[in-house]
Amino acid sequence: MPRTVFEVDLNKAPEDAAMKPHNRWHPDIPMVETFKPGEVMRVECYDWTGGQVGNNDSANDIRDVDLTRVHYLSGPFGFEGAEPGDLLVVDILDIGAKDESRWGFNGLFAKENGGGFLTEHYPKATKSIWDFEGIYTTSRHIPGVRYPGLIHPGLIGCLPDHKLLAEANRREAELIATDPDRVPPLACPPDPSTALMGQMSGSAAQNAAKEAWRTVPPREHGGNCDIKNLSRGSKVYFPVYVKGGGLSMGDIHFSQGDGEITFCGAIEMAGWIDIKVDIIKDGMSKYGVINPIFKPSPIDPHFDDYLIFEGISVDEHTGEQYYLDAHVAYRRACLNAIEYLKKFGYSGEQAYMILGTAPVEGRIAGIVDIPNVCATLAIPTAIFDFDIRPNGDGPKRAVPEVKVAEST
Amino acid sequence: MPRTVFEVDLNKAPEDAAMKPHNRWHPDIPMVETFKPGEVMRVECYDWTGGQVGNNDSANDIRDVDLTRVHYLSGPFGFEGAEPGDLLVVDILDIGAKDESRWGFNGLFAKENGGGFLTEHYPKATKSIWDFEGIYTTSRHIPGVRYPGLIHPGLIGCLPDHKLLAEANRREAELIATDPDRVPPLACPPDPSTALMGQMSGSAAQNAAKEAWRTVPPREHGGNCDIKNLSRGSKVYFPVYVKGGGLSMGDIHFSQGDGEITFCGAIEMAGWIDIKVDIIKDGMSKYGVINPIFKPSPIDPHFDDYLIFEGISVDEHTGEQYYLDAHVAYRRACLNAIEYLKKFGYSGEQAYMILGTAPVEGRIAGIVDIPNVCATLAIPTAIFDFDIRPNGDGPKRAVPEVKVAEST
Amino acid sequence: MPRTVFEVDLNKAPEDAAMKPHNRWHPDIPMVETFKPGEVMRVECYDWTGGQVGNNDSANDIRDVDLTRVHYLSGPFGFEGAEPGDLLVVDILDIGAKDESRWGFNGLFAKENGGGFLTEHYPKATKSIWDFEGIYTTSRHIPGVRYPGLIHPGLIGCLPDHKLLAEANRREAELIATDPDRVPPLACPPDPSTALMGQMSGSAAQNAAKEAWRTVPPREHGGNCDIKNLSRGSKVYFPVYVKGGGLSMGDIHFSQGDGEITFCGAIEMAGWIDIKVDIIKDGMSKYGVINPIFKPSPIDPHFDDYLIFEGISVDEHTGEQYYLDAHVAYRRACLNAIEYLKKFGYSGEQAYMILGTAPVEGRIAGIVDIPNVCATLAIPTAIFDFDIRPNGDGPKRAVPEVKVAEST
Amino acid sequence: MPRTVFEVDLNKAPEDAAMKPHNRWHPDIPMVETFKPGEVMRVECYDWTGGQVGNNDSANDIRDVDLTRVHYLSGPFGFEGAEPGDLLVVDILDIGAKDESRWGFNGLFAKENGGGFLTEHYPKATKSIWDFEGIYTTSRHIPGVRYPGLIHPGLIGCLPDHKLLAEANRREAELIATDPDRVPPLACPPDPSTALMGQMSGSAAQNAAKEAWRTVPPREHGGNCDIKNLSRGSKVYFPVYVKGGGLSMGDIHFSQGDGEITFCGAIEMAGWIDIKVDIIKDGMSKYGVINPIFKPSPIDPHFDDYLIFEGISVDEHTGEQYYLDAHVAYRRACLNAIEYLKKFGYSGEQAYMILGTAPVEGRIAGIVDIPNVCATLAIPTAIFDFDIRPNGDGPKRAVPEVKVAEST
Repeated sequence: MPRTVFEVDLNKAPEDAAMKPHNRWHPDIPMVETFKPGEVMRVECYDWTGGQVGNNDSANDIRDVDLTRVHYLSGPFGFEGAEPGDLLVVDILDIGAKDESRWGFNGLFAKENGGGFLTEHYPKATKSIWDFEGIYTTSRHIPGVRYPGLIHPGLIGCLPDHKLLAEANRREAELIATDPDRVPPLACPPDPSTALMGQMSGSAAQNAAKEAWRTVPPREHGGNCDIKNLSRGSKVYFPVYVKGGGLSMGDIHFSQGDGEITFCGAIEMAGWIDIKVDIIKDGMSKYGVINPIFKPSPIDPHFDDYLIFEGISVDEHTGEQYYLDAHVAYRRACLNAIEYLKKFGYSGEQAYMILGTAPVEGRIAGIVDIPNVCATLAIPTAIFDFDIRPNGDGPKRAVPEVKVAEST
Repeated sequence: MPRTVFEVDLNKAPEDAAMKPHNRWHPDIPMVETFKPGEVMRVECYDWTGGQVGNNDSANDIRDVDLTRVHYLSGPFGFEGAEPGDLLVVDILDIGAKDESRWGFNGLFAKENGGGFLTEHYPKATKSIWDFEGIYTTSRHIPGVRYPGLIHPGLIGCLPDHKLLAEANRREAELIATDPDRVPPLACPPDPSTALMGQMSGSAAQNAAKEAWRTVPPREHGGNCDIKNLSRGSKVYFPVYVKGGGLSMGDIHFSQGDGEITFCGAIEMAGWIDIKVDIIKDGMSKYGVINPIFKPSPIDPHFDDYLIFEGISVDEHTGEQYYLDAHVAYRRACLNAIEYLKKFGYSGEQAYMILGTAPVEGRIAGIVDIPNVCATLAIPTAIFDFDIRPNGDGPKRAVPEVKVAEST
Repeated sequence: MPRTVFEVDLNKAPEDAAMKPHNRWHPDIPMVETFKPGEVMRVECYDWTGGQVGNNDSANDIRDVDLTRVHYLSGPFGFEGAEPGDLLVVDILDIGAKDESRWGFNGLFAKENGGGFLTEHYPKATKSIWDFEGIYTTSRHIPGVRYPGLIHPGLIGCLPDHKLLAEANRREAELIATDPDRVPPLACPPDPSTALMGQMSGSAAQNAAKEAWRTVPPREHGGNCDIKNLSRGSKVYFPVYVKGGGLSMGDIHFSQGDGEITFCGAIEMAGWIDIKVDIIKDGMSKYGVINPIFKPSPIDPHFDDYLIFEGISVDEHTGEQYYLDAHVAYRRACLNAIEYLKKFGYSGEQAYMILGTAPVEGRIAGIVDIPNVCATLAIPTAIFDFDIRPNGDGPKRAVPEVKVAEST
Repeated sequence: MPRTVFEVDLNKAPEDAAMKPHNRWHPDIPMVETFKPGEVMRVECYDWTGGQVGNNDSANDIRDVDLTRVHYLSGPFGFEGAEPGDLLVVDILDIGAKDESRWGFNGLFAKENGGGFLTEHYPKATKSIWDFEGIYTTSRHIPGVRYPGLIHPGLIGCLPDHKLLAEANRREAELIATDPDRVPPLACPPDPSTALMGQMSGSAAQNAAKEAWRTVPPREHGGNCDIKNLSRGSKVYFPVYVKGGGLSMGDIHFSQGDGEITFCGAIEMAGWIDIKVDIIKDGMSKYGVINPIFKPSPIDPHFDDYLIFEGISVDEHTGEQYYLDAHVAYRRACLNAIEYLKKFGYSGEQAYMILGTAPVEGRIAGIVDIPNVCATLAIPTAIFDFDIRPNGDGPKRAVPEVKVAEST
């Protein structure tokens, strides 16, 4: 077995951990350890909430998640020879659950606590628990579906340098300034109060935390990309900004749909990631790379039969016409799929959670036909244990009445 | 061979055709013919410009395309028993080029003439010609690539009813009113001057044309969805709004990338479509259908190896941070891919055209991580006759110097 | 459209054709025409019986097929620069039915007339007719199934040289000599009586026909390989034995299962093939090639869900144990699949024909575990319009009672 | 984590194990434990030699493997309600290596010790060691290749009943009697001397061992099927012969090619299997099942590009023509592939081992074209880290000179 280079004890809160995770991005966070390229290493990771959510039937914990205390990252790891301008080539060799924690959760945040993609439609905190049986997962809260896991880190990337740090802080601050009191906010500014800065401590950590990035958005370095196909067997090319690279990761998902529309999120889990790292010297310039690029895995689940829903960029409530807005079009495609699934007996929350957790594909079909984007959402029909395809007889209510976990 | 129920003579302009196409959508356009469900029928179609673009090495015709005279549709066809509220189940059995016209074109419109997804970067009219060799296409203007066709109608759908007609006219007019002088415009209002209304004529046609939809955007009925996977072998479920259905189609593409980012567009061609139609009575209500849904084909090209580019919603020029804007994120993913391809010797226009014409996949990876959407663009590596994967040696300039067709 | 370099008139018997096909292989058959490498050309082909079988509901024509008058090949075609020892690289660009003949047939030969793989079980002549609807085929004789075509030439290859000709004649004669009166025979010796030698005529043709190969078996040059994946979009590398190459082809199949177990055969059809040819000089030696090698098409039908049957090398009648006999093991896998399909209402002949015509995969799973080979037969479940997967309730008889065409 | 219901200590020989495995099949071997259907359970397994082969650079252990002491099976397990005539539905949920043993081996047996598929060509004992890095494996003895594992049990099935036991013993004895002194033998008769009978002991075990099946061949019950696609995520339907079922398994392979042509065998490993079992009452009769049937996994590795070699049933040494012999045809296809790979620098033994261990597909293309079978062997090109496709320049010797482990 590969050497475990970052250990996580799920019985301890991340704040009390022996190996200190970080929940902010900053150039000065010290490397946990520096490796030779080519070494296989195992990295253990917290679930994204660091244990705030339990395997039970109440969504109170989802309701109460503290979003300033999330994304506990394992790392940063250094690699000999890596310098700014290089590409770090990361082979994601395998990913799994910790033996003592073979389950995950999906939640809808309350609108006041960040909400999700469809928070106007589903504003209450709810939760579903997903059990892992080998490569598959099922939920006692959402009957009739079983998926093979397309397990991946929601969050992975290298430390930014000071220039990139400042640039993103600038642009995000400007966005926030356009509507500073919005709920949910337009972006999350630095917040030193709950920052964990890895092995950095004292005033150095406090000062760095004042400018360190929050972890929610993806940025040039990767970060919280939530790309469901960064699964075991894939290979990612990350831009290097600081000497050594400073690769960190966390927020493992057992399975997720394109868009991670439920925000909390995919099927969230604690676990481990086996990686091997190589370097392409001066790769950013050689290949013109700004954001990470990647190659998917030969063992991504493959399906031949999909049911595909279209959506266009017209608001569902007001009928307002948006101009080439892929966000609105994808929302409409999702809502169309949810209405369809409800005909088979699912509640709206259940259908919404299926779209957030199953390996559904969200595509931008047409983005130039003014004023409407056409977005599509493709659901693999094989994940259902009944036939969801349209036919002349109409849908059969196939799903037993079971409820998702709710908050009080 | 199936009976040809709509004939197109490529030697005549659509305006002079024996069987009259329509280039507007309106409930009152008469059916060309009414069929029993289950009959296989062949429908011939113009290329989307109705012959305005030639197989030559000048882009002047692209520069001069009259966008009010496009999307000459074949139909509408009626089907016995189809009534408002039903679903029309359309089997797209096969699609092909006309024997006398085994080529297609791709163009970048000048910014003044509608532009495209990247018109700020590539504002000039240019063109590439694509020859068809069986299932494959190659271009004398873009060396080093060959794709299998994922041939599909860019435009297909049923006639809207008066209510839907009015509703979309209302919302689009309101959008236009927010910036009526914009170039390119925010949307295209009805324009009777160049309307072809099929078999409708005289003052009835003139009056209808004043409210008839232009064809550019997709709407609830389908229309110009530009979904590359509506290919031969797929099945589509269309909402029915008028008695008989009124199915029309056109704008055939030999191959297209997700987004159809070049706007003009995919590999555009004239050709024919073989279809068979069935009906699900009351299907809109039974299945909660607003927009069309579909199932892809078992013979869609399949690739195992992709190179995938990420993009986030930050403006490439100004560094402005957008809020969960999938449009901007997908544009950045496209621009990232173009910069990468340029390293192998392609011009920006050539790389842009590859993204517009090859079966690339555009995905919404994460759409809830405020403020950044993460969009991805996946390019199948097998379409290139050289190796485009990153390696330590850096890219080799593999592409001979050839230029796309330009305008004077 | 590519130039048609070999024309076939389906209203005339091959013996009376203007362009003379050949139904034997011999080094001295003159080239029809010689081409430059790279030219796209269309080759029309007879169905393998040259029109002996009709689109009707009697199998008398199957019963009466004259097996010495089959495999009318279009060619041979020469290519400038091709010399013995080269590889002819053949791009199979597209394949289709002739407009006037959009149907095919599948038959079981009577045991006295060659039989088939399961002739001991199904000794009577029967037939099914298959109609083509775009990429799909269905049969009025076998309800409940629809396949996408994996259309391919059953027979394609280059002319042998005199040495190879003699060698195969020797070995086949020796095999026949071990049981010369067997019905069906062990192999087919030269038979000049019905030989068509292309443009060769008179005594030269008569003499050559005495040693010319019959066309049934595949040999080193390719020939009647019946490989279902040599479909449109594939690329084949053929050994060259004579100057110019001498490429011929015919026996088009709309769809076939691995093994072509019904012998007559696949879904047999007349049609056309578009090809383009290139040459690898000295390729046989460079790559150590004895038999053709090939690359499959990116648009082969793809399925995710198969039901897979195993078979072992024990005789189904006598219980005799065979030693690592893959032939027997595959027969048992086929018989197991047939018994399974019969539970849904198919007759044995119908099930047998499904295995012969659908894109089923026949695999050699284990071939070293003495004394049993384990062979498998994989049926894509999506070709059925009902659910064939096992479940606790048992199979439902889903297939309407329809019979295959029988002989009197 | 699922409960481990069968533990294996790799530091102890199977003969000394606390939980006693069995290496023979017999109806009277007692159940290890009986489970309710639906329970997830983990079964640990020895490698097929029970630890006879080491992770080193000598093939002496391969030379000396005692073939009467192999296939140590974990089980048999009983399931409540399972009775003769039922089908046991086994979900293979996941499979993995034991943490302390993340490697496997492939060997060629000496001809005197069983040999392999190509033992006449490669008669000496040799070995390669394969290291596991997440989903991938590489070998220090065979450079230039890396595969994703298609990990599966080579051996799984239910206990036979006395009738089936006797029947197979009869037929195999009759085969042996036709050439009793053959090396290697035609089949392996019962051999009580080295039999392990699980929890059976004393004279009962001794008497049962006299008639108990050896484990090498697959039989009606499944057993040593060596089907590479029985991987994690697949579902198998096994015939039940004895009350409770009596499911046993072992002989885990990390990866194997169709045919398992190297006999020793695939990439052989110790590990664990997570399964869940359900029952279809009276399923054998309901579905006409004699041999197991199965459904493959949604996460089988998928490749789009193969190089496919053909072989026909003519002996490579003598030129003898065989009659429809798929064994010979597949051997020729394998030999053709080996000659091809040698052009890139591999030794014959290395190429042979690649075919035995990589996920190559062995197909029966045509099996009715007297007298030649056409068999094919398809190699996924993506497993090589250099380009193996034919081109005009000829092959480059890309493989560093490294040798497989040899015996003294």
